[in-house]
Amino acid sequence: MGGIDQVNETRLAPAVANEGNTVENRDSVTKNIPTDAIINLDHGDPTMYEAFWEKMGDRCTVEIKGCDSLSYFSNPKNPCWFLEPKLEEAIRSLHGAVGNAVTDGYSIVVGTGSSHLVNAVLYALTSNHQPNQISVVSAAPYYSAYPEIADLVRSGLYKWAGDARQFDKDEPYIELVTSPNNPNGVIQGSVVNRDGGILVHDLAYYWPQYTPITSSLEFNIMLFTASKCTGHAGSRIGWALVKDKEVAKRMIKFMEVTTIGVSKESQLRVANILQFIADGCKQFGSPQGDNFFEFGQSLMKKRWQILREILKENQMFTIPKYPLDQHCNFFGDITNAHPAFAWMKCKEEIEDCEKLLRGHQILARSGRRFGSDPGFVRVSMVGREDEFNLFIDRLSKIQSFNNGDEKDKANASGNLV
Amino acid sequence: MGGIDQVNETRLAPAVANEGNTVENRDSVTKNIPTDAIINLDHGDPTMYEAFWEKMGDRCTVEIKGCDSLSYFSNPKNPCWFLEPKLEEAIRSLHGAVGNAVTDGYSIVVGTGSSHLVNAVLYALTSNHQPNQISVVSAAPYYSAYPEIADLVRSGLYKWAGDARQFDKDEPYIELVTSPNNPNGVIQGSVVNRDGGILVHDLAYYWPQYTPITSSLEFNIMLFTASKCTGHAGSRIGWALVKDKEVAKRMIKFMEVTTIGVSKESQLRVANILQFIADGCKQFGSPQGDNFFEFGQSLMKKRWQILREILKENQMFTIPKYPLDQHCNFFGDITNAHPAFAWMKCKEEIEDCEKLLRGHQILARSGRRFGSDPGFVRVSMVGREDEFNLFIDRLSKIQSFNNGDEKDKANASGNLV
Repeated sequence: MGGIDQVNETRLAPAVANEGNTVENRDSVTKNIPTDAIINLDHGDPTMYEAFWEKMGDRCTVEIKGCDSLSYFSNPKNPCWFLEPKLEEAIRSLHGAVGNAVTDGYSIVVGTGSSHLVNAVLYALTSNHQPNQISVVSAAPYYSAYPEIADLVRSGLYKWAGDARQFDKDEPYIELVTSPNNPNGVIQGSVVNRDGGILVHDLAYYWPQYTPITSSLEFNIMLFTASKCTGHAGSRIGWALVKDKEVAKRMIKFMEVTTIGVSKESQLRVANILQFIADGCKQFGSPQGDNFFEFGQSLMKKRWQILREILKENQMFTIPKYPLDQHCNFFGDITNAHPAFAWMKCKEEIEDCEKLLRGHQILARSGRRFGSDPGFVRVSMVGREDEFNLFIDRLSKIQSFNNGDEKDKANASGNLV
Repeated sequence: MGGIDQVNETRLAPAVANEGNTVENRDSVTKNIPTDAIINLDHGDPTMYEAFWEKMGDRCTVEIKGCDSLSYFSNPKNPCWFLEPKLEEAIRSLHGAVGNAVTDGYSIVVGTGSSHLVNAVLYALTSNHQPNQISVVSAAPYYSAYPEIADLVRSGLYKWAGDARQFDKDEPYIELVTSPNNPNGVIQGSVVNRDGGILVHDLAYYWPQYTPITSSLEFNIMLFTASKCTGHAGSRIGWALVKDKEVAKRMIKFMEVTTIGVSKESQLRVANILQFIADGCKQFGSPQGDNFFEFGQSLMKKRWQILREILKENQMFTIPKYPLDQHCNFFGDITNAHPAFAWMKCKEEIEDCEKLLRGHQILARSGRRFGSDPGFVRVSMVGREDEFNLFIDRLSKIQSFNNGDEKDKANASGNLV
């Protein structure tokens, strides 16, 4: 999951409350955004990929008849009886083509997005034998949805225990390792590293458009999602690669009790999309531009170049440094990181970076939500082109704090939207 | 929900373990079932409707392009921002055409099947102000999934407290009222009726093919699902009609944290299906047979006639008595109940009715699972035609217990599959 962005009321409300110049209708706004519109870069809504899929026209169209897929069952032979065989095949095929994860010997569990799988994995790892709640930790800055997921219904099985770096209890724990990390794009490993720990790897962004693919991973539990890989966030399809069959079984049980499986239409459609991408991976530099990851990487690279130039000019924000020039096994070439989010920190005395941006009609997510400092803010880099351009345009107009204007503005902007 | 049937390992396993004569591949089995095959009537898999949808051919086909529905958002103006406007419209249109529920003044919350909505409603009704776990009750025999849903992650907000008729605590509670009831098809109201109780009406089966529609209901929280209404169980689309906007908001919050919304493809497809059915409702007795509920009612009526004849002949089981000849507002005529399940009780000394049927290669769900007696069993009436015929054929061969044979068989049959 990592970068699937929780939509919450307080975030969504400003974007829809202010008729006339708001994100009230994403289509009309983003295809023809009024210049004074609020742009919502709080969510990582991966609409930048629309351009690629529009170009592919009917080549990935699926047709579903009224009489198709009526049954609950996709394949009763599979312990994950609600997993469409075509989706399983496409997932294995795509990981094989990209080389980012080993699938041989792994069970595949499908979920309604990878949030569903995080919920399932917490249940699966704790339901069997624990008398006490197991602590769930993740290294700050961590994905803002983890605490919400872990504590939603006050489970007696598990509880959120915060920043993995601060975890000092001598007891079993689950560590969620997001790599590349949401919000900051950093490639990272586990940090607690003690006995009794179970690792869950959230690899939502371990795809060639975001980061060099340096090895084919084979952790015990690896989570992926169509949203960030292909841009099909509306489909709500995530998958887990799980080594231990008993853990997979308990995840399946969780899916049964919470949703009795996963939408067949979405599975069949995403199967088509993943297979199309896997097939396109074989061609590099084709004139038809069929290689999805070439498209994605090229667009992300361009956006990051533009962002870096602007930040260099206005000297007001810093962003993380990423390792330069790594060999990407997928592209067979030297590439760089182009994370799905910009993790920006105000350089000077502004305490609340989110407020500052809000004052400029840019909605982003405060560092506070990620267990970090409100001096940080996370900004989506994967929205539509015109949204991104407007973001850059507004960012370029934010003046240095030296004259005090921006500081005052930031402190007052809570009332603006 | 009511009749959405949990698939659990122990139930599924026998149906897939015994190669050659099993339900290993539902298509091959049910379209051409070997006569010694195990038939699985444990789940309420509503495949009987396939015949109707096949006849409709391409009239309900949806086409989804690669570039469609990428965003998380369906309609940011709606508090339920992930609900497709077309689905909302179709839901209101269908309830209007059928006259089974009032929708004016209600918020609609969509879920990944109505199990998801039961999970959401428990959260929504308990997360706001309760220091203690709230008891969740339902009148036995109750839907077998309720206890599993309520206790899955040992929530500190709510807990399963069993049969509503036995509930005698003087404290707040949630009562799940399933009507027509799963498993026994009975029309029922709340039974606790004390201060501090909140009712949730699970109306999965309140459609004209199953029961006379005697009034347009307007309870505070009403749950429905495409599975049992249209037969599209694979789509995992359920909806709640919710009077209190704050309760709706908290249900939406639950959907956000657990699955970040609901599959767009399924919503768009089910929107098409519901609208098609609503339009077809205007015609009765049309030669094209476009009225879905006429098809459904006619098939259910036929099956129940056949079942009653067989049960009369072999004198071994009793089934509930339903009120006769009620006026159905939808058909504008006198109709009878034809529940989605047969709730059968062995007449004589057999203690375990499920075992008895298993000995005859029929998988059904034990009364024990519904908080009732193992002398009862729930058998799906909504499977494919050849499955139903095989069930009737086998039922007709079960001989009277008088000679003791069946009793011995029932006691031994645990080892047969």
